Amino acid sequence: MSLLRARINGQEGSELPVLDRGLHYGDGVFRTLRVEQGVPRNRDRQLARLYDDARRIGLVPPDARMLTEEVMQLCAGQPPAVLKIILTRGSGGRGYQADAAATPTRILLLYAMPEYPAAHWRDGIRVRICDTRLAQNPRLAGIKHLNRIEQVLARAEWNEPAIAEGLMLDTGGRLIEGVSSNLFLARDGVLLTPDLSRCGIGGLMREMILESASAYTRAVQIRDLNIDDLLAADECMVCNSVIGIWPVTQLDERRWPVGPVTRSLQRQLDEA
Amino acid sequence: MSLLRARINGQEGSELPVLDRGLHYGDGVFRTLRVEQGVPRNRDRQLARLYDDARRIGLVPPDARMLTEEVMQLCAGQPPAVLKIILTRGSGGRGYQADAAATPTRILLLYAMPEYPAAHWRDGIRVRICDTRLAQNPRLAGIKHLNRIEQVLARAEWNEPAIAEGLMLDTGGRLIEGVSSNLFLARDGVLLTPDLSRCGIGGLMREMILESASAYTRAVQIRDLNIDDLLAADECMVCNSVIGIWPVTQLDERRWPVGPVTRSLQRQLDEA
Repeated sequence: MSLLRARINGQEGSELPVLDRGLHYGDGVFRTLRVEQGVPRNRDRQLARLYDDARRIGLVPPDARMLTEEVMQLCAGQPPAVLKIILTRGSGGRGYQADAAATPTRILLLYAMPEYPAAHWRDGIRVRICDTRLAQNPRLAGIKHLNRIEQVLARAEWNEPAIAEGLMLDTGGRLIEGVSSNLFLARDGVLLTPDLSRCGIGGLMREMILESASAYTRAVQIRDLNIDDLLAADECMVCNSVIGIWPVTQLDERRWPVGPVTRSLQRQLDEA
Repeated sequence: MSLLRARINGQEGSELPVLDRGLHYGDGVFRTLRVEQGVPRNRDRQLARLYDDARRIGLVPPDARMLTEEVMQLCAGQPPAVLKIILTRGSGGRGYQADAAATPTRILLLYAMPEYPAAHWRDGIRVRICDTRLAQNPRLAGIKHLNRIEQVLARAEWNEPAIAEGLMLDTGGRLIEGVSSNLFLARDGVLLTPDLSRCGIGGLMREMILESASAYTRAVQIRDLNIDDLLAADECMVCNSVIGIWPVTQLDERRWPVGPVTRSLQRQLDEA
């Protein structure tokens, strides 16, 4: 993705002190937002999740009003874009022990919107099952932290442009998420999504889909799912805040239609 | 720790491009070396391990002769120090997908040697058991990669200066390592150290202790260990390339003497 603008601790710039703990330990959290008409979508909810995640790793986040203002300034007047917000625990400390007085680093990166084929949204995508597994650690589960080497290894497993996403299992064989998306299945009209209490990232789009389903009194189950559940599903889809919802229509020989649950969730998302 | 010198891709400097994948994903590996009389200890072996780890995550390391030369230039004439070498997958790519043509970033950081009390080596240290657990993922086990948020959370659990190290268990309750060290026990003259095939970092000092024990025909077992094994041990010690070997003499109410196996390993290390 090509970088449009970068701001570090409120200053235009694209260089980071090499002692930053984000580099050394992945000691930080992030969120990725879709920017349209110069405004990041779901800004306040995304920032609230970012701050929740920061607190879960003991990182005291910066003043929210200041960060919000910086975000708005960065995005104003910009073309459609992706905004990545990173908070790290800053520099300093002695090895793994952080300096209690350290100031968190706030990094805002605005990228040009990647050109995703319209067919991904309309006709669905092909996926694969990745060999790289997700480790289980309830202490870290759900947090969008900067330790993402499992996703890097999973994404490196394929190069075929025809495969738009990889699905990841945990070390126990449970189906958890896409490499950069959350996963939903539909079966007999019930919406299913993996339990993320042991591993996985809880994206805002997942949360919004769950809310939307609930508002439309659609039956929802958050539970352990495996490959058999996937193969038995009537519909399958992946989602995140940048792509929205993409129907999954092929995994190896298995094909799914773009079904009514997927279409209705896409429509609700469009309206929201 | 206070930074003496920094070199990034061969240039003096202490700023890193904010798009570096080391920051975004912890997509890189590192090694920490002790520098004495301007020379990093066990340089070639450490670099070989660094390169092994890089290859295990699919990162093509830079020319070894070039990196060695940069290391030697950085350390020459410097006071006793700690050298941290970081290799990241560089900048670029599209999200988790790396750019196959990206050049790895090589970061050399020389820190003033921390002042560890001489008593730690001589009389031993007090440790605690950390609440933060290590996730299990054989794909990543043993690699010194930059995803170290578990260690950060574990180290944040205590502030008492009297406690010099924390011991970490995996999510299955097995004893794995110290927050920044490897762990050895001795029982009935047999040297024991945890199996690191599911999680943990394999440090060079651990490797050298295992070799040394083997050279002196001391019985060694690399196997699963738990808290009961720890409490039942005659001796306990932690090690890494910077501190060498520290006897562990206290955990809560349990005390251990600095025993003959520990002393003999320290002596062999001194001679080597």
